[in-house]
Amino acid sequence: MSILGLKESQVAPLVRAIAGDEQDRDALWDRFSRSAWTGIAEPGDRVAGTLVAVLGAREALDAVVSRENVEALHGRVGDTVTKEELGQAFERWTPRLQSRTALLALSQAARYGVRLLVPGDTAWPPGMDDLGPHAPLALWLRGNESTLATAGDSIALVGARAATGYGEHVAMEASAGLVDRGYTIVSGAAYGIDGMAHRAALASSGQTIAVLAGGVDRFYPSGHEALLTRIVDAGAVLSELPCGAAPTKWRFLQRNRLIAAMSRATVVLEAGWRSGSLNTAGHAAALGRPLGAVPGPVTSAASAGCHRLIREFDAVCVTNPDEMAELAPLTGLADRAEGALRTTIEGETVEPAGMQEDRVRVVDALSTRSARVVDDIAARAGLSVATVQGVLGAMQLDGGAAERGSGWVRTPPPARG
Amino acid sequence: MSILGLKESQVAPLVRAIAGDEQDRDALWDRFSRSAWTGIAEPGDRVAGTLVAVLGAREALDAVVSRENVEALHGRVGDTVTKEELGQAFERWTPRLQSRTALLALSQAARYGVRLLVPGDTAWPPGMDDLGPHAPLALWLRGNESTLATAGDSIALVGARAATGYGEHVAMEASAGLVDRGYTIVSGAAYGIDGMAHRAALASSGQTIAVLAGGVDRFYPSGHEALLTRIVDAGAVLSELPCGAAPTKWRFLQRNRLIAAMSRATVVLEAGWRSGSLNTAGHAAALGRPLGAVPGPVTSAASAGCHRLIREFDAVCVTNPDEMAELAPLTGLADRAEGALRTTIEGETVEPAGMQEDRVRVVDALSTRSARVVDDIAARAGLSVATVQGVLGAMQLDGGAAERGSGWVRTPPPARG
Repeated sequence: MSILGLKESQVAPLVRAIAGDEQDRDALWDRFSRSAWTGIAEPGDRVAGTLVAVLGAREALDAVVSRENVEALHGRVGDTVTKEELGQAFERWTPRLQSRTALLALSQAARYGVRLLVPGDTAWPPGMDDLGPHAPLALWLRGNESTLATAGDSIALVGARAATGYGEHVAMEASAGLVDRGYTIVSGAAYGIDGMAHRAALASSGQTIAVLAGGVDRFYPSGHEALLTRIVDAGAVLSELPCGAAPTKWRFLQRNRLIAAMSRATVVLEAGWRSGSLNTAGHAAALGRPLGAVPGPVTSAASAGCHRLIREFDAVCVTNPDEMAELAPLTGLADRAEGALRTTIEGETVEPAGMQEDRVRVVDALSTRSARVVDDIAARAGLSVATVQGVLGAMQLDGGAAERGSGWVRTPPPARG
Repeated sequence: MSILGLKESQVAPLVRAIAGDEQDRDALWDRFSRSAWTGIAEPGDRVAGTLVAVLGAREALDAVVSRENVEALHGRVGDTVTKEELGQAFERWTPRLQSRTALLALSQAARYGVRLLVPGDTAWPPGMDDLGPHAPLALWLRGNESTLATAGDSIALVGARAATGYGEHVAMEASAGLVDRGYTIVSGAAYGIDGMAHRAALASSGQTIAVLAGGVDRFYPSGHEALLTRIVDAGAVLSELPCGAAPTKWRFLQRNRLIAAMSRATVVLEAGWRSGSLNTAGHAAALGRPLGAVPGPVTSAASAGCHRLIREFDAVCVTNPDEMAELAPLTGLADRAEGALRTTIEGETVEPAGMQEDRVRVVDALSTRSARVVDDIAARAGLSVATVQGVLGAMQLDGGAAERGSGWVRTPPPARG
């Protein structure tokens, strides 16, 4: 039995190192396959999620590695995914089918004491399942499984990196107050609001979870190295990306869906009109999770996004920890309207479809300095070679990218997704 | 023909002075009767409103002066008012049936160039009619009738007297911005937000209307004497109380209903948790008028009331003049759900019924220094002698009032309604 040309003897020790000894052969191959999938499919890939859900991670991986006939595979998977989608997915996964990368991620994880969580594990955050086919295929954990067990009563506190003193003060009060009430604080470890939320939770000896957009082996942002080290000690640092994976704009946006999904409620503390935390808020709303926003001076641009959430997106105006706690009382998971939820997700809110999304990923994969060949860009972006060529053509026309020698570079001003 | 023992020769010159010469005899007596009613019934008196609506102001006044049999009067008025209510109303109106007071109010008005407006006059603000039986029986105007003609496109800007620099800044921006867009600013001429709203409107050469809780012959608060004089020059100062009437807590609360009713929308700019401007907001909501609130720092007690309106009373979060203007676009009066409105008003929101309301009025009528006899208190409060005796008894028990000699005084700490 082998996958990606790897024998059980190569895979088993590594999987045991990151997931414990009690693995029968099937579970072991399932875990290995899921860990490999986290490096093959970009976060939120609905086709990968569907394939793995229907066939199991290993059989799904086998089908891709063996380039199973799309017609036949579609017959096995059913109509939630079209033949075209399957074909396109094969194109974008193929450039990443490398046994070396999969093994490297595992050994790096083992080195840093990273654990691999898969659905069904006790520590698997139950909220993730609400993402349906967009749910992460596995999660890489650095820190305490016991912290994840508290995620059922968690509130996400998110906000702008460019926070004001007011925003940081409110984040500190919110985090400390919620921790005192027994909540776990989920955030993204960014500068500004996120960092303050984690810090105040730690200072109050509370539970806190940081969800990263890249591998948990390297901390981002680097200025939060010390903070993230403390979170590993006292809480948990999570990512759906394997060790070695760089954070990209696409992954930040998808990381936000994990923050929203694993939290009972999301509160935006300070956000500019176009802040990334509005993206997290959008995920929370799409998931039917309660959404709160903290008002601030109307004279402060850093609060404009919060007011926008209250005005346009029905966010609840919350002004203190009590009101934030009201969003998600400490009594187990609230019922959620699964039907409505799925509809929204299948729609366009989370689905990584369309030229705009592809372009975000290609921009992520390009460098302004070193020219990269299309195959390399495709592998980095998790897109098919054909898609990358199409996007590069469009970018060349509007000046977003340029050919240099045999490769491509991103040209300033950087395009923003 | 006479009323209150007054002959036409006594009344006519005064009425002509405050309402113009083109008065036939019926109109003249109607105007005089309405002016007298503003001194007999407290603002918002539903029984007076109903009586005047059904019988006309003069016939209603005649019925009270002649102490018409309640049984017979009830037959004429119909079932919207009960016999008990009629009887109680007679009790509270009787102590105020004084020709001297009515004449004094008129001559004082003539002296200050005050005009009397009655329903049907061109300058009568149309929004008032939505108050139904709680509508003012007449309005005393000091200033420009042309300003009242602009009230169809008015927005009320109200807020705390104890405003912060932030609140005053926002009030100034709001008022100037709305005036620039063509709105008339309605407010209560109080210190803090109200004063800033008027001031900024004047500074932008805009239209502004101040609604007072006492007679327009004496300006309240006295520190706004100069401001109110400027509003008289360039805008309008209104009250439903006759000249000589003092502002009382009850009248402030009822004044707020006029501000809400004559404005297309009400915006609260800054308000503490129990600010009086929440009362205005409550009237606006009861009338089905759009209600906005400006958020502020959650660390500021002066914004707590605004956040409360957004959280608990469905006020729209508004952060700039554009968003305020959206509450009431400049295109004539919006349709209002008359049915729902009446229900709310007939309920308890505006109706001055019950011990608590009576107590507010008795407290208003008491002095902490000079002892007042029950008859005097009844006349001042616009309540029957029996009601006043009941309230005083209760206040004596809880220490709110005490007998001194042949009269009563209010005892500190002052009771708050």
